[in-house]
Amino acid sequence: MNQTAIARSWVDTANGHSDFPLQNLPLGIFSRAGGERRCGVAIGDAILDLEAVLAAGLFEGEARVAVEATRGGALNAFFALGRGARVALRERLLELLAEGSEHQAALQAALYPASACALHLPARIGDYTDFYVGIEHAKNVGKLFRPDNPLLPNYKYVPIGYHGRASTIRPSGTDVRRPKGQTLPAGQSEPSFGPCARLDYELELGIWIGQGNELGQSIAVGDAAEHIAGFCLLNDWSARDIQAWEYQPLGPFLSKSFISTVSPWVVTAEALAPFRCAQPARPDGDPQPLSYLLDTRDQAAGAFDIELEVLLLTERMREQNLPAHRLTLSNTLSMYWTVAQMVAHHSVNGCQLQSGDLFGSGTLSGAEPGQFGSLLEITEGGKHPVELASGEVRKFLEDGDEIILRARARRDGVASIGFGECRGKVVAAH
Amino acid sequence: MNQTAIARSWVDTANGHSDFPLQNLPLGIFSRAGGERRCGVAIGDAILDLEAVLAAGLFEGEARVAVEATRGGALNAFFALGRGARVALRERLLELLAEGSEHQAALQAALYPASACALHLPARIGDYTDFYVGIEHAKNVGKLFRPDNPLLPNYKYVPIGYHGRASTIRPSGTDVRRPKGQTLPAGQSEPSFGPCARLDYELELGIWIGQGNELGQSIAVGDAAEHIAGFCLLNDWSARDIQAWEYQPLGPFLSKSFISTVSPWVVTAEALAPFRCAQPARPDGDPQPLSYLLDTRDQAAGAFDIELEVLLLTERMREQNLPAHRLTLSNTLSMYWTVAQMVAHHSVNGCQLQSGDLFGSGTLSGAEPGQFGSLLEITEGGKHPVELASGEVRKFLEDGDEIILRARARRDGVASIGFGECRGKVVAAH
Repeated sequence: MNQTAIARSWVDTANGHSDFPLQNLPLGIFSRAGGERRCGVAIGDAILDLEAVLAAGLFEGEARVAVEATRGGALNAFFALGRGARVALRERLLELLAEGSEHQAALQAALYPASACALHLPARIGDYTDFYVGIEHAKNVGKLFRPDNPLLPNYKYVPIGYHGRASTIRPSGTDVRRPKGQTLPAGQSEPSFGPCARLDYELELGIWIGQGNELGQSIAVGDAAEHIAGFCLLNDWSARDIQAWEYQPLGPFLSKSFISTVSPWVVTAEALAPFRCAQPARPDGDPQPLSYLLDTRDQAAGAFDIELEVLLLTERMREQNLPAHRLTLSNTLSMYWTVAQMVAHHSVNGCQLQSGDLFGSGTLSGAEPGQFGSLLEITEGGKHPVELASGEVRKFLEDGDEIILRARARRDGVASIGFGECRGKVVAAH
Repeated sequence: MNQTAIARSWVDTANGHSDFPLQNLPLGIFSRAGGERRCGVAIGDAILDLEAVLAAGLFEGEARVAVEATRGGALNAFFALGRGARVALRERLLELLAEGSEHQAALQAALYPASACALHLPARIGDYTDFYVGIEHAKNVGKLFRPDNPLLPNYKYVPIGYHGRASTIRPSGTDVRRPKGQTLPAGQSEPSFGPCARLDYELELGIWIGQGNELGQSIAVGDAAEHIAGFCLLNDWSARDIQAWEYQPLGPFLSKSFISTVSPWVVTAEALAPFRCAQPARPDGDPQPLSYLLDTRDQAAGAFDIELEVLLLTERMREQNLPAHRLTLSNTLSMYWTVAQMVAHHSVNGCQLQSGDLFGSGTLSGAEPGQFGSLLEITEGGKHPVELASGEVRKFLEDGDEIILRARARRDGVASIGFGECRGKVVAAH
């Protein structure tokens, strides 16, 4: 594995600072102008068309079965095959794309510039669940309501989550239409109807479910890896004014369901393996997880060390050719629960997970200013506007603002990998 | 229409007290032993196989297009056709199945005893949303927490709802596995893990979505009828002890997602048209709905007068051949918001609805004892057990208990119609 960790690809743009070096090999669904949706692998600035590689006779055995399962414009069937097929495909792709590969000529014809391709949702999403495992976010938001006691009593026992809207999840690049809805303006006793005035982003890790479980069966923490197909970035766009008025007693609804944006590439557990780490130490006095959430290996290596970033680009900044403003630099280490614990908790009641389901981690903020994963936290609910180089200020998002999420995993002696971007631009309400 | 309202069918069992007289004609997905899933229409004690009727050449024009859209073992494509196709099919079925039809002989071969068929989910459910529009239920539950002020400030402005779990919706007759989960036992400061000890039912009306809308577009109240394919009964099984511990701050999650049961027949808006009525008068002082929820015709005829019933049958009652115990007799008139208002609210932020989505009304309790739609309300959280003729008592559901939901719409001078049953039996936790 050490050799693989620093190996180079014959695809030049994959070497150096690309999000997609040989070690990443994320899968996605792409199309070329007028073409059908196919499965591709990101390598440097290019996309490798797996169907074309298959047609060239370069996949055999389990790797071939894996590629055949990627057909149909969605990866659900491939996800359902589980880890074995995914690893077989990865191993073969590592051979084919590594420096010195004997198949360069054949593969070159299956390699398209990413800039000439459209990227789509990687799977048909049956159900989408949004968790709340970013403990610093939970504290920051809790402080706005309960300064002395920000975390609710269940937080350190329950990986809190709720059902989200699956039909409105869109790939990076989809415009974000400002939602309309009911809000209770400050000082009023009756609500008003109109466009959201407190539009926000939320920086999250997305988790794609692989093999499902039967209704009534549970997935143990130690088995969860078999049920996770990969990872992406997720922007859980939020209408704070609608949320504040609607969310009691059943939780957020229309304040979140107008759109959620995901990065289109599915970064696999295998690609992220070098960036696993122990679950961060819990402060003294934090309870031990209940037995169904506890697994020694998961505690030792179930967390991730991945840097997360949020950038803002306003209309005026684009006009003035100013660089995007970094709003957030955070890390997945702020997850109080691992993804395996999330899977185990979600299924402990017998709830059926299905391949292509999506989990969101919840907003991943750090504890310090500069690390907050939403404007709600950064501006303390609009009290302290962000100042931009364009001379503008932002309490919440304005029409024309674009939010860009990025992620990067780094470790000494290992090729660094990224997730690609998760972008969305706010457009005016209808 | 007056003639149709009392017309009889040549299928004998459809006349008299059947849930499925000529005037109902609900659609569903059935299969016979070893056979494929097909669309059928319930008529008396029988199911009419639409594919067989099509093969006999008895559908033409729009009705034929409608039947062709019912293929594939799910009604999503049929739902998406909207009202025109549904009405065309209904009109033709009224001709074919009415007394005096010239096609009895041909149709007889396409008619199977319902008892020899299995019934399935009528559609692939993309997203499931559970509302909370039963105001008496909201008051009853609110009283347990806030005796002097049971309704939250938003209740009379917002048709409160939340996203539910679509993957665990099952048709009537599916066993209900008692879920396990975290609960905080009374008097304890730390949670325990184990089987739910406060398992409950919730009596709801289900609404099947027909034509969808595009992301970013809204559906006006006055247009909502075009987007509603039909109705069913829904049991929103609930684990009260898990719910109480998990639901802050994002709402119910695992306490509901272990299973939800629906009655398999889709009762159409056309069948229910005679049972429409004005929205019940709101008490003086109740606010006027905001403009996007207000439509004169909807106010005048957007509600339903449908009787709802819940029966309990325990293991011992079955052994002793005792009749089922009626727990609830309630009515859809307790809905504070109409189904059209629910559709308009859900899409006002641009949220995309898709054909085959399911809405639940929320628990439909009446104001009086005997009319409460859950054991939580009937027993006041377990304080006043229900006494049964078997000598048993129930605070919450025990293993072996079966819950049966029924619905019946009645009006003088019109054939009464029913929904069929929504049953589920509790089985022990794994």
